[in-house]
Amino acid sequence: MLKIKKLVIIGVGLIGGSLAIALRNARVVESIVGCGRSEENLERGVQLGVIDSYSTEVAHAVKDADMVFIAVPLGAMKKVFRQLHGHLPANAIVTDGGSAKASVVQDWIEVFGDDAQFVPGHPIAGTENSGVEAALPDLYRNRRIIVTPTATTVESHLKQVTQMWEACGAEVSLMSVEHHDQVLAATSHLPHMIAFGLVETLAELEEHTEIFKYAAGGFRDFSRIASSNPEMWRDICLSNGPALSAVLDNYIEHLQAMNALIKASDGEALLKSFRVAKQARDDYVDGLS
Amino acid sequence: MLKIKKLVIIGVGLIGGSLAIALRNARVVESIVGCGRSEENLERGVQLGVIDSYSTEVAHAVKDADMVFIAVPLGAMKKVFRQLHGHLPANAIVTDGGSAKASVVQDWIEVFGDDAQFVPGHPIAGTENSGVEAALPDLYRNRRIIVTPTATTVESHLKQVTQMWEACGAEVSLMSVEHHDQVLAATSHLPHMIAFGLVETLAELEEHTEIFKYAAGGFRDFSRIASSNPEMWRDICLSNGPALSAVLDNYIEHLQAMNALIKASDGEALLKSFRVAKQARDDYVDGLS
Repeated sequence: MLKIKKLVIIGVGLIGGSLAIALRNARVVESIVGCGRSEENLERGVQLGVIDSYSTEVAHAVKDADMVFIAVPLGAMKKVFRQLHGHLPANAIVTDGGSAKASVVQDWIEVFGDDAQFVPGHPIAGTENSGVEAALPDLYRNRRIIVTPTATTVESHLKQVTQMWEACGAEVSLMSVEHHDQVLAATSHLPHMIAFGLVETLAELEEHTEIFKYAAGGFRDFSRIASSNPEMWRDICLSNGPALSAVLDNYIEHLQAMNALIKASDGEALLKSFRVAKQARDDYVDGLS
Repeated sequence: MLKIKKLVIIGVGLIGGSLAIALRNARVVESIVGCGRSEENLERGVQLGVIDSYSTEVAHAVKDADMVFIAVPLGAMKKVFRQLHGHLPANAIVTDGGSAKASVVQDWIEVFGDDAQFVPGHPIAGTENSGVEAALPDLYRNRRIIVTPTATTVESHLKQVTQMWEACGAEVSLMSVEHHDQVLAATSHLPHMIAFGLVETLAELEEHTEIFKYAAGGFRDFSRIASSNPEMWRDICLSNGPALSAVLDNYIEHLQAMNALIKASDGEALLKSFRVAKQARDDYVDGLS
């Protein structure tokens, strides 16, 4: 059975804080140390019982750690790895929550030379809120966690990371780094680009105040993700650029084909295309929920 | 005060049925006659108390009517107008619920020669369900109804249609036909094309079963509208083609610009663009809800 003596959470927000609470509730961890740049946020984490203590220094926080979870923005990963280098205990396992994996693995290898201590991961969970106050005990219950071992990942490390997520009630799937990045580009990164692009398009129209006034319920749900954190999405675009731009090219081609049918008033072809989409959506999305 | 002696609902589904129930509850109508092609649906409407009686013949249904509401698909409007022609009482007002207005007005004028008896309208309300069993007493409460009078709309007719919707608890806005079609192209028709296109793109990927399996919550909300009725959306594309294809061209240009920034790893410009979108979404959408 999994037993973590000292868990260090670097980046105590929604993702890191929720892992801390879930593992504490599952009674698989002895002590939890938080680490981050904002002392105020870390103090709030102690007050809320999310973490037991904290340090603003990575080198100090990870002393005697056996499990380190990094939940910082993708653009800050390499800096954290540099702070970790030379201070990470030899038996410690490091895993992360970054939503693109190739860039994180590359950052790690550039700093550490090999990935023997690193198990890249990505919990498919979240809410629109952020910060330690947004952390939830059940954020990961029945959610999927993708773990992306590399050729040199140590089997026992992979097993412990898997057990850690299972202790939170999550289901762990293994995937290659490249495949993860393609799947996420299609299912998460592309929809966000689409929503940002839609709101930008409408905001540029002359009568945009009126446009938004008449936006119906469907539009609100739809544009909700355009309200996501801009810095986080900039980082994702930079980290998962090739996979994202490939699927975005593909999507643009679909819209161009659809617009050609609208311009040609080709009702038969439009109907066929909408039926394929409805069928796919109903089969796969509703069928699996 | 508004008093309707005989209301005829042509197309007794979610939109038509909900109007019938709301006007009955508001006690502004003496009798409600339903009309449609499916006798089974009309019988169910009588059983549910949505309509008092029915006819499957438009010519018969509208005898002695003073208000006629047409809630059939856009592609069926002209056929209904033809069935109405020669049978419409001289003092009857006709209004509709079509989600594009220029094509409906054109259909009407082609059949009737002028639009003296017609007041085009569009309730911005709906659910994912259809049929008379989906009709709701409060579907229009606090929702917007756009009424699009033309140069020849009779003032007293416009007033009665407005009062009819206000009796349902709705707020009526007046707009020109052309402006309505542009606003709806941007706020409703474009988002639907975007969602259909997204699901089509993902469904074509080789590993599409897996892709949908990992689609997170945001994607489900987002793709929900791709599950809309394909026939209805074919009709909307054909009826509102010019306005829709213009805004779709505009949207495609935005995505192309965004993809160029992703390919160039231009983090600064991406951040700026996402911030504009988030700000616009938060200001206009949340600010008005």
